[in-house]
Amino acid sequence: MKNNYNEVIEKIDNIAEKIYSDLTKTHIPQLSLPTRAKSNIYFNEKLNVWKYGKNNVERSAKSLDGAYMLLRTMYMVDFIKEMIKVNKSSTLREMYYISEGWNFAKFSSQDESNLLAEDLEVITSLMREDFKLRPEEDGARVIGNLTIEEITRSNEKRRIHCQDDVGDSGYSIPYNVEPEKITLKNFDADMIVAIETGGMFDRLVENHFDENFRSILIHLKGQPARSTRRFIKRLSDEKNLPVAVFTDCDPWSFRIFASVAYGAIKTAHISEYLASPSASYLGVTPSDIENYKLPTDELTTEDIKSLKSELTDPRFQDSFWKNEIKLQLKLGKKSEQQALAKYGLDYVTDIYLPEKLAELGMLKK
Amino acid sequence: MKNNYNEVIEKIDNIAEKIYSDLTKTHIPQLSLPTRAKSNIYFNEKLNVWKYGKNNVERSAKSLDGAYMLLRTMYMVDFIKEMIKVNKSSTLREMYYISEGWNFAKFSSQDESNLLAEDLEVITSLMREDFKLRPEEDGARVIGNLTIEEITRSNEKRRIHCQDDVGDSGYSIPYNVEPEKITLKNFDADMIVAIETGGMFDRLVENHFDENFRSILIHLKGQPARSTRRFIKRLSDEKNLPVAVFTDCDPWSFRIFASVAYGAIKTAHISEYLASPSASYLGVTPSDIENYKLPTDELTTEDIKSLKSELTDPRFQDSFWKNEIKLQLKLGKKSEQQALAKYGLDYVTDIYLPEKLAELGMLKK
Repeated sequence: MKNNYNEVIEKIDNIAEKIYSDLTKTHIPQLSLPTRAKSNIYFNEKLNVWKYGKNNVERSAKSLDGAYMLLRTMYMVDFIKEMIKVNKSSTLREMYYISEGWNFAKFSSQDESNLLAEDLEVITSLMREDFKLRPEEDGARVIGNLTIEEITRSNEKRRIHCQDDVGDSGYSIPYNVEPEKITLKNFDADMIVAIETGGMFDRLVENHFDENFRSILIHLKGQPARSTRRFIKRLSDEKNLPVAVFTDCDPWSFRIFASVAYGAIKTAHISEYLASPSASYLGVTPSDIENYKLPTDELTTEDIKSLKSELTDPRFQDSFWKNEIKLQLKLGKKSEQQALAKYGLDYVTDIYLPEKLAELGMLKK
Repeated sequence: MKNNYNEVIEKIDNIAEKIYSDLTKTHIPQLSLPTRAKSNIYFNEKLNVWKYGKNNVERSAKSLDGAYMLLRTMYMVDFIKEMIKVNKSSTLREMYYISEGWNFAKFSSQDESNLLAEDLEVITSLMREDFKLRPEEDGARVIGNLTIEEITRSNEKRRIHCQDDVGDSGYSIPYNVEPEKITLKNFDADMIVAIETGGMFDRLVENHFDENFRSILIHLKGQPARSTRRFIKRLSDEKNLPVAVFTDCDPWSFRIFASVAYGAIKTAHISEYLASPSASYLGVTPSDIENYKLPTDELTTEDIKSLKSELTDPRFQDSFWKNEIKLQLKLGKKSEQQALAKYGLDYVTDIYLPEKLAELGMLKK
């Protein structure tokens, strides 16, 4: 994310210039960008995240569809410049409807407009947030000893302490968590704990886990929104805090961990902004099902298929994951975070989490 | 909701006493409660909300299943008393797992434990919140000129102004919004606007609609959680504020309105605590599709079925709804809040909402 909107304007103007230059040279206008498919994803050992490879696709005016797409690109560049000028932002959904006024350039589906927003990110190496485009999803909630300074809609700087200035529901992460909007100020904590379900987040809050274990709690809300992943990344990097991810024990939850730690396929062009490669998977692990004798459900056919696909996923190739996934297939069982309530409401904070954090070497005392 | 937990304990103790008394009299223990089905729902003209009728169902130890259910009830009463004693609360999911330690009384599915929680509400005329049971769902977000006093987990009184003390994501409604937790303090506003989608909520916030139109904005997050409906009800009653509900234009959104205004079938025993009968449907209406020439999608078979079922739903029997639903069936189209972006990002706040609020007589200036 660039803080400087002049640079954003320059970069998107370059796109228009490229098309204009093609036309003046009587070339067929075209734009080239990386193929965004699993076949063109590779694991970047240096960054420790997923990135796109070298396969490119052309958006060319040679075909009618391609010509429409380039026309849409021009309208969109114009719309983005206008938003930057008047300091507005737009949801992806609103942009889709805005195109009703673009004549031939009108999008025929929202998939098309979302795709174009991603294209622009890839071409310019900027982020959606730079274009003033925002998603529908809510950000998640934060509780912990951390002060955030948010630039509000009225352009005021507001400091919010994520324990003393918020209710028990915590600080709600806005859709834009870039430095132009959010600055991470003072903190006093040893780690970040990212939690899949709202029920478990509220449990840790009620049990004062953030205070007793000097941790900043972040609710992932299932598969985490981009702003949530970006928030974790920034907090972890800027404050040098380790991240523990606490989810259910099933293949879908393992993917939640992977998207936090290594990045997701859809957003591989900006993995280094979103992924926290140092994040550890705290649990619930298939081993925990056995070690803690947790209540379980049977794996479904879909679960088994998904686990098997994870065995060939580059993100799950270390021995920890290979062993755990194989164990889960052998057990034929899955479990949930809240299954720990079998031993009472405090078991998770008094016994389970301290034991697991100690295993990860994340417990200071 | 009772603020006095002694009264709660007394009421749930009565259940245990009833069973005990049945046993000492060598009667087969049983509990009687209203049938919670559409067939036993009637529209209470006085309260203007849905309530249960006179059909009762017996939970009796005559059958093995019934005996288990009564045993579970006893364990649950005990668990609730324990939580009240130590000032804890539990998610419905945690309670399900807690029952792992209840021997024969263990729930065989979460449906069963949820049902029992509802049974207890119906029998005692108390609310889930009285039992310290809470849902998984998040509460929604609020922005407006309103000060809330929340009793935090550390038992401190904390005042939060829903514009000046929060970020642009707003104040996050906690799962418990009863007077023991939340007090509604000073406000300066003329109305409540409840909004279905996050994208539209954020649009109204970005456009300062709360400030320019003296309104308190509440994000419904689709079908609103119980705490959200209760919050709207309390705010509307205690501050004597009219409520306008702003949703997409489809049968599912009409149901969102109905659950805010009249109550939902599942929670008919506490409709008078959750429903805001004075709430008005602001739009998007099927008439708006025509009047504002909005972009539309075709109604699906499911949509048509749902609209037809609403024609026989007691909650949609006034001429406004009859006409609008019939018009929508005739048009064969549906539309979305954000479709108003066709005319630009400010159209909704500059033109549409003022016009619609004026129609409802809710615009002061």
